[in-house]
Amino acid sequence: MVRGGGRLGGLSFTIIHVGKPKAPFVRSGIEHYEKKIKPLASLKFKTVREEPLRKGVTLKEVHRREAERLRKVRDDRTVRVVLDEKGDPLGSEALAALLEKWMIRGRSRLAFLVGGPSGLAPEIREEADLVLSLSPMTFSHELALLVLMEQLYRALAVLNGLPYPR
Amino acid sequence: MVRGGGRLGGLSFTIIHVGKPKAPFVRSGIEHYEKKIKPLASLKFKTVREEPLRKGVTLKEVHRREAERLRKVRDDRTVRVVLDEKGDPLGSEALAALLEKWMIRGRSRLAFLVGGPSGLAPEIREEADLVLSLSPMTFSHELALLVLMEQLYRALAVLNGLPYPR
Repeated sequence: MVRGGGRLGGLSFTIIHVGKPKAPFVRSGIEHYEKKIKPLASLKFKTVREEPLRKGVTLKEVHRREAERLRKVRDDRTVRVVLDEKGDPLGSEALAALLEKWMIRGRSRLAFLVGGPSGLAPEIREEADLVLSLSPMTFSHELALLVLMEQLYRALAVLNGLPYPR
Repeated sequence: MVRGGGRLGGLSFTIIHVGKPKAPFVRSGIEHYEKKIKPLASLKFKTVREEPLRKGVTLKEVHRREAERLRKVRDDRTVRVVLDEKGDPLGSEALAALLEKWMIRGRSRLAFLVGGPSGLAPEIREEADLVLSLSPMTFSHELALLVLMEQLYRALAVLNGLPYPR
């Protein structure tokens, strides 16, 4: 393992999500992990507006509108990781190893896309470098955001030789 | 699906964990799901004291002491589910179906055991009816508790014909 991300310029994470998290415990959990991640990597959030699934609007149309907004905030130089329960299951150590591999190859800017209550358009998944599954279980999108942040912190702890968070 | 757990007497969950959750966001997240679960099922918590992993005490000894405490609060009439990342992976729908199966067979009292920072003794896993993995990823034990509660609420929503939480 390469210890100390700093030597390689460090990792830069952008978490892009559809809709602002509403549950207060999720918002404070995000802050909790933000404080742990920030000394080890750059971390930014981008939120795109959620398209409500209302009468007369198909899910496909909701996805299309949200995908348009997601593409606007996306940066072409980043590695794109999309979260989806039907994606590739990775253990925490495997995720850390993958981040390290990307970092060594100079691909240290990563964007993590988390859908809203309506999920994500299939095209957004197809355009991803990795479709990552956090669990075979379905998590609410807000809980998925929290779990993602814990995993990013856990990966950074591994890559920086810090005690493994328990 | 059997709609309305009430007709079968309902499910009764006891969440047994080693050590009290410390992070404020976890404590408020637990309350968040508690409010959602309580109208649909009985829910209790039991905490056993965590044995600190200090110098001169082996992990095996920590496990042994914690296992003793866990056995004391355990109820012999309950189905025992132990959480462990190396356990059986189940999707959310599969978990709901399993709870329903147990309920139909009159096994409606379930205990969920969540280890502390030192994990659980192998014997505790061996004595379980089900060793459940929430994810191939490692979650901190506090986050695991939160994810478990979301999954219990999700299963109850399915079994009660409520809109699927997104």
